[in-house]
Amino acid sequence: MSLKANFIQAKKASQILAQASTKQKNLVLKILAQELKKQTKEILKANQQDLLAGKKIGLNEAFLDRLELNKNRINGIIESVQQVQKLSDPVNQVLEKRILYNGLKLKKVSVPFGVIGVIYESRPNVTIDVAILCLKSGNACLLKGGPEANYSNQALTKIIQTALRKAKLPVPAVQSLNPEKKTVAELLQAKQFVDLIIPRGGPGLIKFVEENSKIPFLAAGAGICHIFVDDSADLKNAVEIVFNAKCQRPSVCNAIECVIVHEKIAGKFLPLMEQKLLEKTTELLADKKSLKFLKTGALAQAKDFDTEFLDYKMAVKTVQDYQEAIEFINQHGTKHSESILSKNKKHIQAFLRQVDSAAVYANSSTRFTDGFEFGLGAEIGISTSKFHARGPMALKELTTYKYVIEGKGQIRN
Amino acid sequence: MSLKANFIQAKKASQILAQASTKQKNLVLKILAQELKKQTKEILKANQQDLLAGKKIGLNEAFLDRLELNKNRINGIIESVQQVQKLSDPVNQVLEKRILYNGLKLKKVSVPFGVIGVIYESRPNVTIDVAILCLKSGNACLLKGGPEANYSNQALTKIIQTALRKAKLPVPAVQSLNPEKKTVAELLQAKQFVDLIIPRGGPGLIKFVEENSKIPFLAAGAGICHIFVDDSADLKNAVEIVFNAKCQRPSVCNAIECVIVHEKIAGKFLPLMEQKLLEKTTELLADKKSLKFLKTGALAQAKDFDTEFLDYKMAVKTVQDYQEAIEFINQHGTKHSESILSKNKKHIQAFLRQVDSAAVYANSSTRFTDGFEFGLGAEIGISTSKFHARGPMALKELTTYKYVIEGKGQIRN
Repeated sequence: MSLKANFIQAKKASQILAQASTKQKNLVLKILAQELKKQTKEILKANQQDLLAGKKIGLNEAFLDRLELNKNRINGIIESVQQVQKLSDPVNQVLEKRILYNGLKLKKVSVPFGVIGVIYESRPNVTIDVAILCLKSGNACLLKGGPEANYSNQALTKIIQTALRKAKLPVPAVQSLNPEKKTVAELLQAKQFVDLIIPRGGPGLIKFVEENSKIPFLAAGAGICHIFVDDSADLKNAVEIVFNAKCQRPSVCNAIECVIVHEKIAGKFLPLMEQKLLEKTTELLADKKSLKFLKTGALAQAKDFDTEFLDYKMAVKTVQDYQEAIEFINQHGTKHSESILSKNKKHIQAFLRQVDSAAVYANSSTRFTDGFEFGLGAEIGISTSKFHARGPMALKELTTYKYVIEGKGQIRN
Repeated sequence: MSLKANFIQAKKASQILAQASTKQKNLVLKILAQELKKQTKEILKANQQDLLAGKKIGLNEAFLDRLELNKNRINGIIESVQQVQKLSDPVNQVLEKRILYNGLKLKKVSVPFGVIGVIYESRPNVTIDVAILCLKSGNACLLKGGPEANYSNQALTKIIQTALRKAKLPVPAVQSLNPEKKTVAELLQAKQFVDLIIPRGGPGLIKFVEENSKIPFLAAGAGICHIFVDDSADLKNAVEIVFNAKCQRPSVCNAIECVIVHEKIAGKFLPLMEQKLLEKTTELLADKKSLKFLKTGALAQAKDFDTEFLDYKMAVKTVQDYQEAIEFINQHGTKHSESILSKNKKHIQAFLRQVDSAAVYANSSTRFTDGFEFGLGAEIGISTSKFHARGPMALKELTTYKYVIEGKGQIRN
């Protein structure tokens, strides 16, 4: 069956949702939280079906862990619904206003995109995360989750639709699409109905979207993040920051993949750093200059400086000065998050201004690049693009704007 | 010869330009205005070469008119350079700032994109317009003008580069690329060096960019703009507004292509409107309901409601109510500019909120959708996309942002 019927219904629903009051949008979130609590059993039952099927086809432990829901995790989901309910409405904000020379009253007002198509991995919690951010920002959404989470996603979507019905909002405002792969290709062509695509997933998905989408998209790209330890850095503190940025949660995009060290302190810093990182048996892939100060390191190959390891593994490079570090980052980074550890104000300012990344830090771990940590109250992903949205994306990033102009019969001379 | 050398030089220049002070950027514009005045003769000489060659290959009058420079037009160009010099610097603006719970100081700061590739028609004035907006917003630019204006563009680019040299800014910050067609294809692939593409031109160019660009782009799409005359409209005023929106300058994108009339006033309004529009012998293509009130109209075909005439030609449609008008516009418009003429506040509010266009007007001509009219001080085009920029694009739209975070050794728990 073609998806066109879904697309048409979503477009219609989006037009009603765009006009919904903040009260109405908060009401649907309130009801959703209640329904998730009430129907926890049904959700867990559906999730069990996914888990059983997943075990049968031999999904690995990490995959099954991401797929699994339990009471605790559902409570976490309910909390996030309540949090988004509390956030302020990003729609209908007057961003600018002025009266033109001819008396026209001009306002630049935030508005929803319309219909957002989201393609994501087999994590059922994402179904709710995405739906609530879209609803709060007045957007209808078409959800294409991973096929391994299909039973869970169907159950959750049904609950969202119950909440929509009870809040007197259009039910097709949130729809789960057939999780087959060909759905993605069809969705990316539906320019007439879909206003924005958000792909969440590995480099394969992002590449497919880049090459095939007829619709603008907000992609969360890979994070090859760097920390540069300058010669004036407090080395003890630097060890703690590097350890945190690499090892506190190596599987996330804001963890670092490479440390760059000023040659003046390499001999002193690298052994200290290695000692600490060995607590987590972190593998070090170092350039020649660095390698001589490491006991356990291996010689890095060129590709190691362009790899997102997402693991207890890190590239190490020694440079002559901060200027070489900045150039190296701009060449090898993915424009995500980078940090300088230094006491030199000039070096810090140069780094913060010249490094071309979404988030640039001085004297801090890179692990804070995150919608919640940044105080945005939510997150739908982290953009490494410079277009429309950069860094953590939340409610505001799901809106666009229009100009509203009121006159008294003005014509142009 | 490959363009890679140009791309690499532009990228390097962009990194220096991004750090340039407002004073330095204004200085280059000041010198540019002086040089344009000083070298007017040389510009006119180069332009004569283009005009001669154009006449030889049989370019039509309108084309030659757009291609032509004269003293007056050069004075106009100089004025626009001086105006952009006076505009405030869009870069390094703190858009948001807060101190996070852990003491991290977070700022969201506007920054240039980097390198902007602009593809445009054979109008030499655009070379200067684009270059000055890019320079003021701290972006390097690669200019791919129409081949028919090549002598003029080379002369103008040389003058811009003289100004860059005198202002001690990197000369390759503004470069004219080989005007061959294959340059476009190569430019659209240069993802590593170019951050943003701006295509200006006909639907053929826009489609080529949509289908081939590996780089985000800001396209100025077609304008199929509408005016809806509600039953409560002041009909005399409505006639003036429709006449202005259609006939004051029919070749521009914010001129209307279709008037929609409430059936209650169609019999009274359409003859008045026709009488006025005949002053410019405007051709009317009307649906059945409207046609009976018109003396000179022809029956519209379906495609007439989806055509950007850019001429003294207009589609006419009669509807039952404002709701039908809104739906019709959302289906047949190009999300550019639409206006409702009405005294009914409810209808006006519904129209302004529900019409999904970059600029929505009440009781005004649509001809004001323009960066200068909107008070942006400049314009590089009008976006009909919803992504990144909507409506008139000026300096602000040529910037993106980054998060700058300063800490004292913070790590994430």
